[in-house]
Amino acid sequence: MEPKSTLRQESHEFTIPTRGRGLYEFTSEVSAWIARNSFKNGLLTLHLRHTSASLLVQENADPDVRRDLERFFARLVPDGDPIFMHTVEGEDDMPAHVRSALTAVNLSLPVRDGRLTLGTWQGIYVWEHRRAPHARKVAAHFIGE
Amino acid sequence: MEPKSTLRQESHEFTIPTRGRGLYEFTSEVSAWIARNSFKNGLLTLHLRHTSASLLVQENADPDVRRDLERFFARLVPDGDPIFMHTVEGEDDMPAHVRSALTAVNLSLPVRDGRLTLGTWQGIYVWEHRRAPHARKVAAHFIGE
Amino acid sequence: MEPKSTLRQESHEFTIPTRGRGLYEFTSEVSAWIARNSFKNGLLTLHLRHTSASLLVQENADPDVRRDLERFFARLVPDGDPIFMHTVEGEDDMPAHVRSALTAVNLSLPVRDGRLTLGTWQGIYVWEHRRAPHARKVAAHFIGE
Repeated sequence: MEPKSTLRQESHEFTIPTRGRGLYEFTSEVSAWIARNSFKNGLLTLHLRHTSASLLVQENADPDVRRDLERFFARLVPDGDPIFMHTVEGEDDMPAHVRSALTAVNLSLPVRDGRLTLGTWQGIYVWEHRRAPHARKVAAHFIGE
Repeated sequence: MEPKSTLRQESHEFTIPTRGRGLYEFTSEVSAWIARNSFKNGLLTLHLRHTSASLLVQENADPDVRRDLERFFARLVPDGDPIFMHTVEGEDDMPAHVRSALTAVNLSLPVRDGRLTLGTWQGIYVWEHRRAPHARKVAAHFIGE
Repeated sequence: MEPKSTLRQESHEFTIPTRGRGLYEFTSEVSAWIARNSFKNGLLTLHLRHTSASLLVQENADPDVRRDLERFFARLVPDGDPIFMHTVEGEDDMPAHVRSALTAVNLSLPVRDGRLTLGTWQGIYVWEHRRAPHARKVAAHFIGE
């Protein structure tokens, strides 16, 4: 019979450098952390510590998908929209907060047999919503065995 | 005094068949898995392994709510929008990716006394965004006692 | 060497009173629960048990950000939109369901050294989408040490 007391947890923080607006995949960084710690089965949680970017699971096959996502959101939440009063940080800042609210900053993924349970075409992305480059912090937590 | 070493975890995968666009409730499948394993208290996580559908918690009382959600999203993200370049998989594919980004593929729910902590009117749905039928895979994980 | 069997879990339910539409921060209530239980490291999960409000992580510095978020969503999902058939609960009810679908009801946050891994400017909010005051229930779960 398997002992039940083998559960453990680990924490980490990823830093994802961005070069302005767009989707930045970091699936391989997450997988490398799993491999380094020999995590087998459990739950992985990621939390983006910012309010002007998002965490997104999206298709990592055709790059047109990412360009179309960016184009759609740029039309839905246009920079410099006169509806916005919060403009002191630039005309792309409030749209970045809205995009963040429309998507997510948070992600929980089961790990099975040492691998993320992502679908075949799924990748994990930081979606940068500001025009300027940033270093985005993602808090990570694993609990399992 | 309660021993603290009774924590355990289990994994599962649900397959939800869809008949094209719309919301498909699978709350009872999730509750049945909880009952089958006698989970009492803990954390349940669901992850949809696709990028053209969503996981949604929504009202399961008036079916008009689901129809209105569908109608609103069809207007917000119209099929065949000329803004999209990714059209090789059909004019409903890129809108499906956008709808997925606007909602979520991921859900974490506390379990208390053997039951999901859903509100009275909340159900768990796969929201199919493609017109064609699909079999949608949802990875599930429980940790608790 | 640290023993590995110190993992434990706790549940709670927050009630957040709202005075109609707008963002209501309850970060300090969550932090107080963590302090009261001496949680050190682990995973905190929050689930809003309603379908006409949201859980949101957003900027807690400039209040204009919250006003702009509200203004943007009021334009994106207008009350009394003739597209909606579900009107029996008031012209602000179906827009509330749509806003809930466009945002999230669910949040998982790592806890490190007794503190939420929120970014410097991040706060946790209930976003009330109905015009009338409500008492919103948020199920909470912690697992860790």
